[in-house]
Amino acid sequence: MGLEFLQGLAVPARTKMVMIIMDGLGGLPLKPGGKTELETARTPNLDALASQSVLGLTVPAGPGISPGSGPGHLGIFGYDPLRYEIGRGALEALGVDFDLHPDDVAARGNFCTVDATGVVVDRRAGRIPTEVSRELAGLLRAIRFEDVQFFVEMVKEHRFAFVMRGPGLGEALTDSDPHQKGLPPLPVRTLEPGSEKAARLANRFIDQARELLARHSPRVATNMILLRGFDRLPRVPTYQELFGLRAAAIAVNGMYRGVARLVGMTVLDVDGITPADEFAALERSWGDFDFFYLHIKKTDTAGESGDFAGKVRAIEEVDALLPRVTALNPDVVIVSGDHSSPAVLRSHSWHPVPTLVYGKDVRADGIAQFGERACGRGSLGMLPAKDVMPIALANAQRLGKYGA
Amino acid sequence: MGLEFLQGLAVPARTKMVMIIMDGLGGLPLKPGGKTELETARTPNLDALASQSVLGLTVPAGPGISPGSGPGHLGIFGYDPLRYEIGRGALEALGVDFDLHPDDVAARGNFCTVDATGVVVDRRAGRIPTEVSRELAGLLRAIRFEDVQFFVEMVKEHRFAFVMRGPGLGEALTDSDPHQKGLPPLPVRTLEPGSEKAARLANRFIDQARELLARHSPRVATNMILLRGFDRLPRVPTYQELFGLRAAAIAVNGMYRGVARLVGMTVLDVDGITPADEFAALERSWGDFDFFYLHIKKTDTAGESGDFAGKVRAIEEVDALLPRVTALNPDVVIVSGDHSSPAVLRSHSWHPVPTLVYGKDVRADGIAQFGERACGRGSLGMLPAKDVMPIALANAQRLGKYGA
Repeated sequence: MGLEFLQGLAVPARTKMVMIIMDGLGGLPLKPGGKTELETARTPNLDALASQSVLGLTVPAGPGISPGSGPGHLGIFGYDPLRYEIGRGALEALGVDFDLHPDDVAARGNFCTVDATGVVVDRRAGRIPTEVSRELAGLLRAIRFEDVQFFVEMVKEHRFAFVMRGPGLGEALTDSDPHQKGLPPLPVRTLEPGSEKAARLANRFIDQARELLARHSPRVATNMILLRGFDRLPRVPTYQELFGLRAAAIAVNGMYRGVARLVGMTVLDVDGITPADEFAALERSWGDFDFFYLHIKKTDTAGESGDFAGKVRAIEEVDALLPRVTALNPDVVIVSGDHSSPAVLRSHSWHPVPTLVYGKDVRADGIAQFGERACGRGSLGMLPAKDVMPIALANAQRLGKYGA
Repeated sequence: MGLEFLQGLAVPARTKMVMIIMDGLGGLPLKPGGKTELETARTPNLDALASQSVLGLTVPAGPGISPGSGPGHLGIFGYDPLRYEIGRGALEALGVDFDLHPDDVAARGNFCTVDATGVVVDRRAGRIPTEVSRELAGLLRAIRFEDVQFFVEMVKEHRFAFVMRGPGLGEALTDSDPHQKGLPPLPVRTLEPGSEKAARLANRFIDQARELLARHSPRVATNMILLRGFDRLPRVPTYQELFGLRAAAIAVNGMYRGVARLVGMTVLDVDGITPADEFAALERSWGDFDFFYLHIKKTDTAGESGDFAGKVRAIEEVDALLPRVTALNPDVVIVSGDHSSPAVLRSHSWHPVPTLVYGKDVRADGIAQFGERACGRGSLGMLPAKDVMPIALANAQRLGKYGA
């Protein structure tokens, strides 16, 4: 079932939808037979909501696939992550709130250190402070060739997003980053016809960057840049185009703001960085949008650093805030994750993600628990993450009848 | 898994299959936490059959999609309803048992009322009685232009099915129906090359119809017709072609007889209109076919009119008749619906449909209850409706091994 098909069924409504994404929500027990992070957490509010919901386990990109944040989010947002692929360069630029245009070519950049022979001795230039990088990035912004603009946008420490904007650029380019020490930076080469101009100008930019960095502070070890992951944005139909939804995103971290912007969400300002600050932003803008995506980062951060107890606490923190959402009387609430990040694995994983869809017209499963095993018994079963959004839209009375 | 693939595996057998479709079977509780219509109904025979069956919840057209009867039936019949789309005009003609040919162009028609300036003042001509419409339709049947025949088949009250048959007709046509009062009927226009002749003759037909209606009874307010939803039949491979099945349909209402005919079923005469009459037709023709589709309308009628108790009674009526099916010793029995029609929603809905597949070789779930929640625990899980038919065919020993 394609998005075009859903688009044809979309009807206007005055309903409000909230999607709470706890990043990396799915987990694993510390020991076989034990409880996962979510099952361990005391979650009276999520459990109560679960009892009035349909439950299932979502598969973000495909069975056995451990997705990154980009595909994980596209999946739960209702898009097939295998069809709409966001490359790392584009994600990096989106992540720093750069207004990436459809024809821009983006890459990830590092400041690095090369020795006198031009060989990379530190791919991260000793993780220089962000303030130093910001100054160096300012230098590079002066570069301009032919009819092409270059953007150098700081991420943090040694990392920046690199963007080329101008006519006739292609994104089929190899990395200049050799991906290991002891090798010199590589020339950017074309992978397909049509990217010759982009390759030529990327190489000229790198040469010029080396000169500028050397001139700026010849004794400083930050004397070169590396570019990798050239790509451009996929064309993604927006929530407004598809469903007539005025959608807002509440996320502190740049990458999630970027992915949300890609599907046409308005990214709201958050006054602070805690989950409570995010819930406050939701309350403030409640009247202005139909759909709210609220992203919680802490669950994934804890999962990826192996902090089982920290992930449990992060989930309990969200549970304690949940009544602030239900107090707004939303028509539909989705609680899920973009992927699993079990603390015992210290990484994103392929495990399906506990998911609930609440609405007054759901045929509730009558399972008063929100956890991996509980969701596995839910009537949604194990389902592609992209199927959640149509179910949520139906519950929000935003999909009309198909056929007679 | 496509139908062509299944066709390649089909093998002959002498088994008998029965598919009982309770229209709009799936429901919702009256109050959160309560029981659905099916869960409320006393269904000892269905429960006993369930205990020897595999259970699941079928998704007729796609997650979140509320299907009409056409796509709902195509789904449970084993076809992808998004691939085989039946337009409204074709459905209307099928619905009145009109023998629609593959190249016929069909539309929905209304008798209507226009004022002296030609503006539509009543799109339904005061919902004139069917007998009056039938007489007027008789007038219009006299119309014939060039090498094209026109059919005007009564549905009921002001509604009729309109069919054009002849060489060189296309169906890419706009409606003459302005879809609101206060506007004149619109000329039929072509949407694609190839439909010019059809547009021209449809407009000539409409002009002629106006003259005939005026001449017939100048003071009667039924003085015009409106046509909408021009289309033709999709090409659907039949049960005979796909599976070598001699299939029969037992349905009282025209639309279901029409959809059954589309997939190549022989529509049986029913002596009466009650479910008991339908079960009698099944018994009478038991020796003549391999596959029987038996359609019960009452469940949907009650659901769509918000009559929870009436839907419960309709289900109990079918349950009481079920022993007449099991007495025939069928090899496979499917009990399902074409979609859900919860009484609380008074409409078709997106909720998945309780479904059982009985056969002597099923790996029974051991759940002695036929209801939404019970089926949600079944081993079939939540599955596309079109996947039920292959499972049923396998249980009827009508699918051979794939590969060596």
